[in-house]
Amino acid sequence: MRDPLQLVKSYLEEKVCIYLRDRSRLEGVLCGFDEHMNVGLLIGGEFMTVRGESIVMIGQE
Amino acid sequence: MRDPLQLVKSYLEEKVCIYLRDRSRLEGVLCGFDEHMNVGLLIGGEFMTVRGESIVMIGQE
Amino acid sequence: MRDPLQLVKSYLEEKVCIYLRDRSRLEGVLCGFDEHMNVGLLIGGEFMTVRGESIVMIGQE
Amino acid sequence: MRDPLQLVKSYLEEKVCIYLRDRSRLEGVLCGFDEHMNVGLLIGGEFMTVRGESIVMIGQE
Amino acid sequence: MRDPLQLVKSYLEEKVCIYLRDRSRLEGVLCGFDEHMNVGLLIGGEFMTVRGESIVMIGQE
Amino acid sequence: MRDPLQLVKSYLEEKVCIYLRDRSRLEGVLCGFDEHMNVGLLIGGEFMTVRGESIVMIGQE
Amino acid sequence: MRDPLQLVKSYLEEKVCIYLRDRSRLEGVLCGFDEHMNVGLLIGGEFMTVRGESIVMIGQE
Repeated sequence: MRDPLQLVKSYLEEKVCIYLRDRSRLEGVLCGFDEHMNVGLLIGGEFMTVRGESIVMIGQE
Repeated sequence: MRDPLQLVKSYLEEKVCIYLRDRSRLEGVLCGFDEHMNVGLLIGGEFMTVRGESIVMIGQE
Repeated sequence: MRDPLQLVKSYLEEKVCIYLRDRSRLEGVLCGFDEHMNVGLLIGGEFMTVRGESIVMIGQE
Repeated sequence: MRDPLQLVKSYLEEKVCIYLRDRSRLEGVLCGFDEHMNVGLLIGGEFMTVRGESIVMIGQE
Repeated sequence: MRDPLQLVKSYLEEKVCIYLRDRSRLEGVLCGFDEHMNVGLLIGGEFMTVRGESIVMIGQE
Repeated sequence: MRDPLQLVKSYLEEKVCIYLRDRSRLEGVLCGFDEHMNVGLLIGGEFMTVRGESIVMIGQE
Repeated sequence: MRDPLQLVKSYLEEKVCIYLRDRSRLEGVLCGFDEHMNVGLLIGGEFMTVRGESIVMIGQE
């Protein structure tokens, strides 16, 4: 069995797609996350911190 | 009695259908879950982590 | 007084109706539940795990 | 001062009206409740368990 | 400084107006409250218990 | 760095604007707050207690 | 790996863009934050405290 947060860890430094509750999507390199699934993304050279509660799912690009 | 999370465990490595709060559905192989019902799915060769709070229900395909 | 979760326990192995927040209904045999009112249902031979946070109410069929 | 849950206790075995977040109403005899304001109702001979998070208010009929 | 719950306490036995999340209003005598801002109201001779999570604000009438 | 709740403290006894989740605004003198960002306001001589969960932001007037 | 809250710390005293759940945006200098991602902003000479629960994401301007 692969723990869901361990799965997120396996995406580190890779391009991911973040699906948000408002149905929008973010694409960027995953540079960090925490136990609440808050994530840090690098999008076009700028850092973005996304709150876990706004996220529906995170997938490999 | 079958504890709901034990039931989810019985779906591991099987094809499942995830019903989301926004009424969309995801189908894939369940590769992991945790006590918050965050789940890891394998969908067409790509891994996806889905947050429990976005999930309404998980069923056998 | 009958504790609400004790009441759910009395429905075990019986047909129940689950009313969801999106106003849809599920009917099946209740095979398990936990303190968060996550429930396990048997619907037409397939198991389904429903998250408590999506449930408005559970009643005897 | 009357603690709100003590007030609910005073409605036990009486007919109550439950106002839900989706603006619908339930009427029945209150047969139980817990600290999350999950409640057990007897409606026309059938038991119903209502999750506290779906409830706006509970009043004497 | 006046702690918000201490402020609610100062409304006890007085007529208050409760503004709910669904934009409706309740007027009645405040007869109790707890730390979750669940409140007990006396409205036209009938008791009503209102869940804190449904409340936006409580004010003096 | 200025902790956000310390910032709220600096608004005490001053006129503030409270932006609510339903997009309405309240203006009044901030007379108290707690760690949940529940606040006490004095609006035109009347006290109002606003639940933190209904608040998007608090700003100096 | 860069912890998402550490990432927010790296934006301190810089211009940031806050994306809110109601799809509006705030731009200002980040002057503080806490573990709930409540933030303090300086917008045109006025301080504003924004509740974490209203925030979708925080990014460098």
